[in-house]
Amino acid sequence: MSDLLIRNCNVLNITIDARAFILYEHDILIGGNRIEAVQPTGSADPSHFKQVIDGTGLLAMPGLINTHAHVPMVIFRGLAEDVTIEQWFNDYMWPLESNLQAEDVYWGMQLGLAEMIRSGVTSVADHYFFMDESAKAVEKAGTRALLGWAIFGSNGKEMIERTGKFISDWQGAANGRIRTIMAPHSPYLCDDDYLRACVKKAKQLHVGIHIHASENMDQTQSSLQKRGLTPIQVCEQTGILDGHTIIAHGCGVLPEDMPILAKHEVGFAHAPKTYMKLAMKTAPVLQFRQHGIPVGLATDGAVSNNTMDIFESLRLMALTQKQESGLATNMPIPEALYIATRESAKVYGLPDEIGALDPGNLADLILVNLNGIHHQPLHSMTASLVYNVRASDVVTTICDGKVLMQDGKLLTLDEAEIVSQVKAGMQRLAQRQPDKRIQVYNP
Amino acid sequence: MSDLLIRNCNVLNITIDARAFILYEHDILIGGNRIEAVQPTGSADPSHFKQVIDGTGLLAMPGLINTHAHVPMVIFRGLAEDVTIEQWFNDYMWPLESNLQAEDVYWGMQLGLAEMIRSGVTSVADHYFFMDESAKAVEKAGTRALLGWAIFGSNGKEMIERTGKFISDWQGAANGRIRTIMAPHSPYLCDDDYLRACVKKAKQLHVGIHIHASENMDQTQSSLQKRGLTPIQVCEQTGILDGHTIIAHGCGVLPEDMPILAKHEVGFAHAPKTYMKLAMKTAPVLQFRQHGIPVGLATDGAVSNNTMDIFESLRLMALTQKQESGLATNMPIPEALYIATRESAKVYGLPDEIGALDPGNLADLILVNLNGIHHQPLHSMTASLVYNVRASDVVTTICDGKVLMQDGKLLTLDEAEIVSQVKAGMQRLAQRQPDKRIQVYNP
Repeated sequence: MSDLLIRNCNVLNITIDARAFILYEHDILIGGNRIEAVQPTGSADPSHFKQVIDGTGLLAMPGLINTHAHVPMVIFRGLAEDVTIEQWFNDYMWPLESNLQAEDVYWGMQLGLAEMIRSGVTSVADHYFFMDESAKAVEKAGTRALLGWAIFGSNGKEMIERTGKFISDWQGAANGRIRTIMAPHSPYLCDDDYLRACVKKAKQLHVGIHIHASENMDQTQSSLQKRGLTPIQVCEQTGILDGHTIIAHGCGVLPEDMPILAKHEVGFAHAPKTYMKLAMKTAPVLQFRQHGIPVGLATDGAVSNNTMDIFESLRLMALTQKQESGLATNMPIPEALYIATRESAKVYGLPDEIGALDPGNLADLILVNLNGIHHQPLHSMTASLVYNVRASDVVTTICDGKVLMQDGKLLTLDEAEIVSQVKAGMQRLAQRQPDKRIQVYNP
Repeated sequence: MSDLLIRNCNVLNITIDARAFILYEHDILIGGNRIEAVQPTGSADPSHFKQVIDGTGLLAMPGLINTHAHVPMVIFRGLAEDVTIEQWFNDYMWPLESNLQAEDVYWGMQLGLAEMIRSGVTSVADHYFFMDESAKAVEKAGTRALLGWAIFGSNGKEMIERTGKFISDWQGAANGRIRTIMAPHSPYLCDDDYLRACVKKAKQLHVGIHIHASENMDQTQSSLQKRGLTPIQVCEQTGILDGHTIIAHGCGVLPEDMPILAKHEVGFAHAPKTYMKLAMKTAPVLQFRQHGIPVGLATDGAVSNNTMDIFESLRLMALTQKQESGLATNMPIPEALYIATRESAKVYGLPDEIGALDPGNLADLILVNLNGIHHQPLHSMTASLVYNVRASDVVTTICDGKVLMQDGKLLTLDEAEIVSQVKAGMQRLAQRQPDKRIQVYNP
């Protein structure tokens, strides 16, 4: 008796050398939280499984991976529109975040996770505050998460200890679904001494680092002016790049940073909608990959990205890389899908466990309905996944072998309760006192 | 007894000076094919209406307008991916279109119209072949359409006469929902003499012109080299700009073209996803508007745009204009929504009839459900319309006072039949013989 059989679906297969093809009419066999086999429909006997899901006419693919988010920021979405980066931080985001209470994070995290489960996201690298609350929400939601408690130099070193306690408390929790990471905010809000102390703690606890760096060209120029080093060089010198490191954005990475990055186990989290909305040049994704530096898809927070939709990040990455490079043959569909799956898994830190429907991998997968009229006639399923799909085409989401959404119905979270709890705080959360900020942006 | 009451919805109000706000809990009263009143819920008696739709908790807004499409190209979508513009035309699109038969256009048009009705589009300016078939499909679907039969200089002047017959046959048909327009392909595929003959015929028949011009900077440079004139100057000299004119794309419009355009009744159809996908610089939308030249949203054909989703065009216009200009305060939400509604109506040629829910206007409107978890908490409905909404959030579509989709169910078209008819031709349609092209792209 095995646990779960997904029957007769078409399976997206992205090979390790980034070819993309479809296995038609296959079964996916799941035992515990692992994929046991992916095989042509026929030989698996449904009566040998505790649960059977009919995948006929649906496409199975790896659960999507969001490599950089501030999930609970969904509670503020729509509140900081059409503003510059400086205004966004100083007049909106950081005043708004002075309203944050632990409970807001608990419900905000659930709200964002519900949106992600509906959109096919099964893993998220989250970078925020009150992370014990986020961990409780992830435990309940059933997704995978890599949680980092965002800290600033101004918080003092005792906050590094507090983060360390969070890491010890939660590392490996929820059947291993929860992993943790040190999350110093950025080189512009943590001085070298503080960054070094974070690295020391991370090494002690055997976790990696999740940080913002070279988010845009202004930050890079400012760092060069102030100290003659790029933010990436600062990261190298302070040891930030010594272990597994996720760097958010990197739109200001310079050609001379590339060889440094290539020497380390670093991946970039790429959130193209944020860059467009904040009028930044996009990140050098093609150049990162030419240097062997992996790139993962991300949404960033919903105050800049508005949604938690990784399919949208996938599409915008492909479109912006073509447009920016002036060459329409760049970022072809198989490469875009490779980044969305195997390469995002690498950035997330689980390259051999998620991001592919290979036997032995963790059973994180989604079923996508490509029968909607916006896909018809379906000449190319892989083209549809990049250029036609809507998050609402995801019908079933499975993580760690457990069904989190089936046929559009969430099974682990109570959406009505979550929305009602978040709405109750809306007025309070939307208030801004410009002199009441958690930080000042002046990189 | 009046015809239709939309009860207790929130109404998007875009003023003529481009402010955006919401009228909460209003009724929309419709008599025949016109809006009679928009008023606070309460005084209208539902029993005085033949049909009542409950809009509680939904947002009503003008039906979306697609100012440039090749709708039946949906039958080819997914067949020309990751290729340059030249390959796209010469190796894919024009060989593929040599497979076209009249019946393909009839079913392809219905497929695209079904997708548009589902996405909230009620009017489309279509530019394609076998247009009698398209007109029949529009008649059946219940949408509004401005139909132009695409012609090339190589078709000979008899094709201008054929187009003239189409115009005479269909102008004002289907209760006025169908309007027609002359549609010479472009200055690079119609010589001056041919363009002048098209203009003459258009004037004779009292219709406008729908044309591709200055689609990208290469075309502009090539035209300057070959004859010392920009494509816009060619349009002016041949009379193309004399009446109501829709120009598709204009990504290659130069600053010196702006004053010429500003003197005429010209609007640009803007399809940003196509420009990104084909790695073109986007169109100078901010500059057009600074010169008082109107811009309308468009999808172009689904072989470059992949979908017929005008909400996606809206979002990508806003994002690309911010990114291209390097200023995040550009293209603020009210301006983007103004372009999507009143300004698209102007480009389409019905500025006082559609694009706004004003009493006396044609009753073209949609109901959008912003209660999905990807909008919550709903701090800003207008932000959600630009940055969060999915085409699948459209639940009800009304055109010319008739309900075309209600609660997600299409009432005028048989989707199963349409998909089955289109799928039956898939193999034949997908065949490419590179030596069998309808045209050659070499501007």
